[in-house]
Amino acid sequence: MKIILLLGAGLSSSSLIRYLLDHAEQEDWFVNVVDQDLSLAQRKIGNHPRAAALSFNALDPAERKPMIGHADIVISMLPARFHAEVAVDCIELKTHLITPSYVSPEMKALAEHAVKAGIVIMNEIGVDPGIDHMSAMQIIHDIQAKGGKMDSFKSFCGGLMAPESDDNPWHFKFTWNPRNVVLAGQGGAAAFIQNNENKYIPYSQLFKRTERFEISTYGEFDGYANRDSFAYRKTYGLLDIPTLYRGTLRRPDFCQGWNVFIELGMTDDSYKLSDSNLMTPRRFINSFLPYYPSKSVEEKFMEFLGPERIQLFDQFNWLGIFNNEEFIGLENASPAKLLEEFLIKKLILSPNDKDMIVMYHEFEYSIENKKKKVIASMVNIGEDPMYTSMANTVGLPVAIMAKLILQEKFNTPGVHIPIQPEVYNPIMEELKSFGILFHEVENDL
Amino acid sequence: MKIILLLGAGLSSSSLIRYLLDHAEQEDWFVNVVDQDLSLAQRKIGNHPRAAALSFNALDPAERKPMIGHADIVISMLPARFHAEVAVDCIELKTHLITPSYVSPEMKALAEHAVKAGIVIMNEIGVDPGIDHMSAMQIIHDIQAKGGKMDSFKSFCGGLMAPESDDNPWHFKFTWNPRNVVLAGQGGAAAFIQNNENKYIPYSQLFKRTERFEISTYGEFDGYANRDSFAYRKTYGLLDIPTLYRGTLRRPDFCQGWNVFIELGMTDDSYKLSDSNLMTPRRFINSFLPYYPSKSVEEKFMEFLGPERIQLFDQFNWLGIFNNEEFIGLENASPAKLLEEFLIKKLILSPNDKDMIVMYHEFEYSIENKKKKVIASMVNIGEDPMYTSMANTVGLPVAIMAKLILQEKFNTPGVHIPIQPEVYNPIMEELKSFGILFHEVENDL
Repeated sequence: MKIILLLGAGLSSSSLIRYLLDHAEQEDWFVNVVDQDLSLAQRKIGNHPRAAALSFNALDPAERKPMIGHADIVISMLPARFHAEVAVDCIELKTHLITPSYVSPEMKALAEHAVKAGIVIMNEIGVDPGIDHMSAMQIIHDIQAKGGKMDSFKSFCGGLMAPESDDNPWHFKFTWNPRNVVLAGQGGAAAFIQNNENKYIPYSQLFKRTERFEISTYGEFDGYANRDSFAYRKTYGLLDIPTLYRGTLRRPDFCQGWNVFIELGMTDDSYKLSDSNLMTPRRFINSFLPYYPSKSVEEKFMEFLGPERIQLFDQFNWLGIFNNEEFIGLENASPAKLLEEFLIKKLILSPNDKDMIVMYHEFEYSIENKKKKVIASMVNIGEDPMYTSMANTVGLPVAIMAKLILQEKFNTPGVHIPIQPEVYNPIMEELKSFGILFHEVENDL
Repeated sequence: MKIILLLGAGLSSSSLIRYLLDHAEQEDWFVNVVDQDLSLAQRKIGNHPRAAALSFNALDPAERKPMIGHADIVISMLPARFHAEVAVDCIELKTHLITPSYVSPEMKALAEHAVKAGIVIMNEIGVDPGIDHMSAMQIIHDIQAKGGKMDSFKSFCGGLMAPESDDNPWHFKFTWNPRNVVLAGQGGAAAFIQNNENKYIPYSQLFKRTERFEISTYGEFDGYANRDSFAYRKTYGLLDIPTLYRGTLRRPDFCQGWNVFIELGMTDDSYKLSDSNLMTPRRFINSFLPYYPSKSVEEKFMEFLGPERIQLFDQFNWLGIFNNEEFIGLENASPAKLLEEFLIKKLILSPNDKDMIVMYHEFEYSIENKKKKVIASMVNIGEDPMYTSMANTVGLPVAIMAKLILQEKFNTPGVHIPIQPEVYNPIMEELKSFGILFHEVENDL
């Protein structure tokens, strides 16, 4: 019997746990699910005979090390900053490790130790990062195998609302950590490469300089650039590719509206508002509009928008941003924190809502003096508030990866991300059976 | 004989040293001028019989403490971050201290110790901060003394070019630390109070939301808000004033042009450009413009400006921003650092150039059911590149303050800023004899 130790039973672990339990009998697995909240872990495993719910402090090495030593593989769904220290224990105790998070410099530094210990540490194997790497590498390796030369790769991913739940003028609800949405794009410019020119977009332009896409039957999306696309030349083995651009997808109305919050300064997290506890939504937005005693807040906001984007007014009005009845209710908060608190109330998922993950890749390549373009898009819709598309697309690749390692179908020791055919081929294939699949179209350019 | 110890003989000490030497005989002073560059200190004192040039490491307590113990007063023109540790020595050795810099939290924490030691530590006594405090308090105390109630106080100051040296389309040259100009306004929003409403302006709006002033014969100026005006309610004893706004003055063309650099992201100091050593001015600006193969950089820039501010094109063209002949020549530099290096070459003072300090206060008050407005403005022009207006307006208040302390006309122990009548009255009076004076106009509202 193989023992799997799962650290963290939160929202992102639902689909992962379901997969592990569904396969436990056949694969001869036993699954230990650890969470600080024991009842949460218990609810997630039900009364499955091949699983146990445990509660200990996974952040304390003394508590977790005996459990790691006892396991064949560890899956860490802890906050990303703890993965590296879990990895140190896994190396010492020669236990494989999977995390869905970006490889941190600390994790990278463990590569040689992992090789020496003979263990696999697989990272970036959720959806973004994760399915983006695997789906891209599959297509890129395929193009290269037939002699094509990559000219351009643009890739976008976004967590959005399923069409049946897309019932507000922002076409957005929070399906994941709201704070990440509010702060998205802050801290340094977005950087990418276009026709061998390095391009930089400052935060204040990020939601203006978007790219527009249409995905059949799902309508239009806008993509804004992610922080650093430069590093992906190396990640994908495309050192000389002239164009490389990674971004995040939202609906066009969201980008245009969000840009207004940025322009006003309402997403700033670098200082506290001295009177944040006294802020009603109306007072909050008025703090960022000029003083003009004879004009209402609505009139000043319309002037700020200007005639060419006056249509956004209704979108803001729908949020209740001009209401003056209730305090937002946070002491000593930054504008970003107040904005988050205000938006959460309006942009929350209802119990019947379904989320949607959209991924969109655009490849251009040259072959036999011809230029070709491949568009590969994935749209995945969540099942319910427990098995969201986010939980499925993050958890299933992690779970399948665990199976591959335990079946010894992948056993190259080291610190990895999923760019190997022996990893992405079986995972992408099995994901199809869960409805996670790409639609591919190739055209001559 | 009284001994004055001056730490730092740089640009900002020229006028200060001249004043001290001119008064040394009459006041029975001896002036020790310390600089790490001994020849600089020697040049500044010439062969004056009541002065000595010294070179030691003023940042090393072991080296400076014997000299502080030997002095009656220390004037610290060191970088602001060193003032507090000099103050600790001054307290121990019971020697008065003057600095032109803002009171840091560390300096503030020494207040009780200064009182116990019986020494004066006077800070913020240059031009801004310095003359701004003194001129404002003089007028505010005067209004309050006759029974007026302050309704509004707006105050602006700027270091600019004298009209005879104002010969470029930006109407600006660097008269002080260029890095401070490039980074001005970054790090948190500007905050002020308008009619009891707290207002915040994010960096991306700062050079757009300016206030326009006209000063007779000197033309138009734009003021942009300084970081934090809130704290000045307490500083000036105006806890309930409905409007308080402090800002920096520039010429309107400068503000409009500078806003374009900000919008493009070229003032960002938070990350390095990976290819900064290969940046020509043209490549530099093009990094922040969209990719569009059929359009020139000039065309893309004109599109970025849009028709309503197309007149700014010439201003940028004059800078040589579209030149592609030479590298700017900095390795691993941030956009801000590259911009500074590029601008320094074009916006440098010529040997015959004169600088100009402009200060503009606007007071509104109520008295006997009437509302009145006072405008007080100061325009001061530098003598030459040594005795600039900046050096005069910073150095002379410091020097006169030293005289007041040594004459025991001000001897209240503690950590101070110059808001006491017994300080600002004699200093503002004596500054007049150096041509540093305010023009005041009062009108009914």
